Amino acid sequence: MDEFDIIRRYFLNALMPEYVSTGPGDDCAVLTVPTDHSLCVSTDTLISGTHFPHSASPVVVANRAFGANFSDLAAMGASPYGITLALTLPSGDETWLDQFSVASQAQADAHQCPVVGGNLAKGDLSITLTVMGTVPNGSAILRSGASQGDDVYVSGFLGDAAGAVRQLGSFNANAQLLSRYESPVPRLALGIALRGIASAAIDISDGFLADLSHLLTSSRVGAVIDLNHLPLSLSLVEAFDKPAAIDLALRGGDDYELCFSAHPDHRQAIAELAEVQGLRLSRLGEIVSGAPVVVNKASGRELDTLGYRHFS
Amino acid sequence: MDEFDIIRRYFLNALMPEYVSTGPGDDCAVLTVPTDHSLCVSTDTLISGTHFPHSASPVVVANRAFGANFSDLAAMGASPYGITLALTLPSGDETWLDQFSVASQAQADAHQCPVVGGNLAKGDLSITLTVMGTVPNGSAILRSGASQGDDVYVSGFLGDAAGAVRQLGSFNANAQLLSRYESPVPRLALGIALRGIASAAIDISDGFLADLSHLLTSSRVGAVIDLNHLPLSLSLVEAFDKPAAIDLALRGGDDYELCFSAHPDHRQAIAELAEVQGLRLSRLGEIVSGAPVVVNKASGRELDTLGYRHFS
Repeated sequence: MDEFDIIRRYFLNALMPEYVSTGPGDDCAVLTVPTDHSLCVSTDTLISGTHFPHSASPVVVANRAFGANFSDLAAMGASPYGITLALTLPSGDETWLDQFSVASQAQADAHQCPVVGGNLAKGDLSITLTVMGTVPNGSAILRSGASQGDDVYVSGFLGDAAGAVRQLGSFNANAQLLSRYESPVPRLALGIALRGIASAAIDISDGFLADLSHLLTSSRVGAVIDLNHLPLSLSLVEAFDKPAAIDLALRGGDDYELCFSAHPDHRQAIAELAEVQGLRLSRLGEIVSGAPVVVNKASGRELDTLGYRHFS
Repeated sequence: MDEFDIIRRYFLNALMPEYVSTGPGDDCAVLTVPTDHSLCVSTDTLISGTHFPHSASPVVVANRAFGANFSDLAAMGASPYGITLALTLPSGDETWLDQFSVASQAQADAHQCPVVGGNLAKGDLSITLTVMGTVPNGSAILRSGASQGDDVYVSGFLGDAAGAVRQLGSFNANAQLLSRYESPVPRLALGIALRGIASAAIDISDGFLADLSHLLTSSRVGAVIDLNHLPLSLSLVEAFDKPAAIDLALRGGDDYELCFSAHPDHRQAIAELAEVQGLRLSRLGEIVSGAPVVVNKASGRELDTLGYRHFS
């Protein structure tokens, strides 16, 4: 199989929704744009050995790549619209491609986000997705909208994926934690529901404190956080001692949960949202004026917000 | 510098057009979509050692990456709208990044196509661009529209870039040819002007015959080509003997010219277009019914259309 056979076999046969008038196979895909909506666009690269272990299965690679990209849409309150897939792999391994393609298609289907274009090249394994979403004009949730007095929330549990990474290769690896690392669930429905409620949002990929700190920098505010309210899963506290679990939750990364701010007027609406979506939404603290730092409520001291960084 | 410093320093400072309400620096860019227009999207990866020599300067890397991506828009008749840039590089080399960033920005400016998002990761050098363009609804030029009796055209000269690759590292390398390889010029204005004129189009990246063959396959037709009309530059015929020059023009690739079909009624319009744009448009033959093969008019025999292929 050469690249054209591979592309034909694996990526040209998906059904396209009506708004995709030309799917993969031409120089560009052509998409009809919904009226009164804006386009949200984000791109993310995952590299073997950095963003997933060299031993990761093609299903894990697909799930992590799509999950991370959809998570960026979730943070904007956007609905999935289309995605392009640029895959670099060392050889035309049919079994690998078969499994990867099925998993990619499952991700695309699950989130109703057609793979409208792609590229295949030979090289070390890496995958770059560019995801597009739509939001009604003016309703995208930005990082920059947090104000003094807003509450700070986080969805789901923190630290599970990082806990799994710490356990990778161990015989006692916790299946619950591992699944959170291998199949992150983008909070798309939450993001959409937060339009008009959240004043700012970001998805947690680098670590809760690092990403909260990006939000604070964009909004030019600070935050005070109560560590007692950190949402730690039972699996995490069973697998690690308390200080380690808290550190994983604060700095671990790969959670793909949403961190968002909202005016206290919305507390009731957010509580209802948590119930409707069956998703824990923890109120961790509040936005304060001043430098973009995160203060530990108990100690009154600044927390180190450094997350994972390339080139550092 | 870590990745955030690099992104801040090189990619967050560009001026955005009014339709980009949120540029790089949030989870997604947010773009207002023009009314009554469709979106064209394409993604392309360039890998060091495959798509450019390991020794290529950052300026050549940027020019080739942007040129190749814009060329896909040109083939659809689309106007540039926005582009995302995912860069993987082995180290945070400031000089390299500085030159690459200036060249990328120059490409974005020259084609009025803002870099709306990006990603930076550590690994072997590669670059994935995802380009977005717009066309008035229903006016995208597809590969699938060629009909029996249509003329077959190609823009510019063929084989120059492939000739340059053949000469890479040689002391007698021809500067004219080299510049065609290092700084391909996407035929965006031509593509836009061909809306309503061309029945089908494709850009030439894999080689004239290979790409014409893709167009024929999509259109379910064949073509007869007169090799005497192949546009060969003076530089190419000076640097190579005639058979080699013809082979480079037919199979060399990296031309980023447009190959298109058009009804004979448009001959006058196309001749005028060539004059207005100062761009050679050569009529090479015609579309015929039957299998998607290219026949040599002189010999009546089928030409081998295989171009460059990964994994073959």
